[in-house]
Amino acid sequence: MKQDSLDRQPAAFEVSVYECEVHLKFRLIEEKGGLSDRDQLLEQLIDAFTCGTDEYLEPLQVLVKAEEVSEMSASPELRRQLIRLRNSNDLA
Amino acid sequence: MKQDSLDRQPAAFEVSVYECEVHLKFRLIEEKGGLSDRDQLLEQLIDAFTCGTDEYLEPLQVLVKAEEVSEMSASPELRRQLIRLRNSNDLA
Repeated sequence: MKQDSLDRQPAAFEVSVYECEVHLKFRLIEEKGGLSDRDQLLEQLIDAFTCGTDEYLEPLQVLVKAEEVSEMSASPELRRQLIRLRNSNDLA
Repeated sequence: MKQDSLDRQPAAFEVSVYECEVHLKFRLIEEKGGLSDRDQLLEQLIDAFTCGTDEYLEPLQVLVKAEEVSEMSASPELRRQLIRLRNSNDLA
């Protein structure tokens, strides 16, 4: 529903661009050779980590950040998507 | 099944300790305030990233490593678990 405001602002669909970082280090017990498939490695490690700390996994470092940044730093694809989102909000 | 070998080696359940690292950086379109819950942030970012690159996400850096390390570098909990795994293999 549109706001019935006299001083209408430009569409303010409240989305932003965030620069995000996830940095995980941990030790893991695993079968020898079980982590040798490079294509699977990211998924395997994320699965292992998200299962949580147990007797197979020992976290060493967990860094998680999300910082709002200027959309001018984003790729053209992301900027186009922001515009689409804001436009679709205009029409809602 | 046990190997019928004369020069029987000490139990060799082939597990090792791996030091693992996942370092992800990416830009993400998200609702303002949608990433403000620190307790949820890691899960949110991992979910977003594993959904893959699309018009909402722009990867900047992906580093994934898993390196076999000496089990002496692992915590006592992990070392105990290694021993349990090897012992259970002995009995199999």
